[in-house]
Amino acid sequence: MTYTLVLLRHGESDWNAQNLFTGWVDVPLSEKGTEEALTGGRLMVDAGVLPDIVHTSLLRRAISTANLALDVADRHWIPVHRHWRLNERHYGALQGKNKKEIRDEYGEEQFMLWRRSYDVPPPEIEPGTEFSQDADPRYAGEPIPRSECLKDVLERALPYWNEAIVPDLKSRKVVLVAAHGNSLRAIIKHLDGIDDETISGLNVPTGIPLVYELDENLTPTQPGGRYLDPEAAKEAIAAVANQGR
Amino acid sequence: MTYTLVLLRHGESDWNAQNLFTGWVDVPLSEKGTEEALTGGRLMVDAGVLPDIVHTSLLRRAISTANLALDVADRHWIPVHRHWRLNERHYGALQGKNKKEIRDEYGEEQFMLWRRSYDVPPPEIEPGTEFSQDADPRYAGEPIPRSECLKDVLERALPYWNEAIVPDLKSRKVVLVAAHGNSLRAIIKHLDGIDDETISGLNVPTGIPLVYELDENLTPTQPGGRYLDPEAAKEAIAAVANQGR
Repeated sequence: MTYTLVLLRHGESDWNAQNLFTGWVDVPLSEKGTEEALTGGRLMVDAGVLPDIVHTSLLRRAISTANLALDVADRHWIPVHRHWRLNERHYGALQGKNKKEIRDEYGEEQFMLWRRSYDVPPPEIEPGTEFSQDADPRYAGEPIPRSECLKDVLERALPYWNEAIVPDLKSRKVVLVAAHGNSLRAIIKHLDGIDDETISGLNVPTGIPLVYELDENLTPTQPGGRYLDPEAAKEAIAAVANQGR
Repeated sequence: MTYTLVLLRHGESDWNAQNLFTGWVDVPLSEKGTEEALTGGRLMVDAGVLPDIVHTSLLRRAISTANLALDVADRHWIPVHRHWRLNERHYGALQGKNKKEIRDEYGEEQFMLWRRSYDVPPPEIEPGTEFSQDADPRYAGEPIPRSECLKDVLERALPYWNEAIVPDLKSRKVVLVAAHGNSLRAIIKHLDGIDDETISGLNVPTGIPLVYELDENLTPTQPGGRYLDPEAAKEAIAAVANQGR
């Protein structure tokens, strides 16, 4: 007997489409992203993987993805929990900037360090500027970051994983986590015990449910889990790796 | 200092549009209903009434209405609670039947008794038939009805009101309840202390937020509350009263 976890990265957002650093800026899904979310729902139905409960970030691209996919799967009625600890990595002062322009301005090495290093965060965002979250009511009173590396994301996501998600898994619920590239990479790093270097090469495609069966120690029975559309996942992973080119 | 409650009846569903008894059958919003939900969100923004928490039924027409309205109001990220006790009245064996045909078959008097009497439920639905809910996983283990009059709806909604909604109000949250014609009429009957006869003449229009300010005893400071679009509410109330004609 195992626990079932489904990870779902939101579909393409308006800013993914424009090649901008998004982070905690709350942009909507693009039309393509909406389609991806609906496809994600159909894949769950086809595989008979039907969530009993869903956890999302506080950002609408993940929330909408969950809403759309769950509606298709006739699971719109399941309990919902949301937390900023599942948010995308905070991209600091890079939020709202074009990825290609940042690469041209700072060079390939610095660009890749900010995008892919495990423990080098981008410069902090200035409070009160256009893309900062300091006045956003959804984070009122919360110890939110001004910039994060993947290590930071893992450290702030882990308490939520342990205190909110693990209990749902242990009560034998099929748990859906609808979140973001980096919050899902953090969870995957933790689950699969991936080291700090190897994780930089791991990409999570959008809109394709990734199913983990976990044993009683919460160890994946199959490292890396299984995508519900393995072929599409392979293609999409290659495409993500080319972002910013 | 008062508590703020916002009641929102879902927008038109596919079956409202076809003049069918819907009850617990989980039909989607029509295109018009989707528009109504978005308008509901804009009305909340314009009035500066922004929910801190939302309670919905387990039916997608209420869930989608909440999702759409809250997204427009930039409140998609608030905590969500769902319960069957906020569902529409269970219409028993009438579910899926055309309102006009039922009126023609059983006559105006019986039709109005089933539609509007306080304590006469329609015939019970047969388990295992097309529009029954006995095998629906969302109600597994729950003491769900097979037919309800408005009195039954009030009796099953009240525990949820007292145990889930009132505590949120008392913690000074602006509470949105996204639900149905009859579950909202039940709550309104309770709040405004409306008698069993008078409630039969009260209709709640779709998609127009109804705001109650409640004093410390949970008594409305203005009986009947206030619709955020009073003119549209007046017209819509007249239209609801003519359903089945």
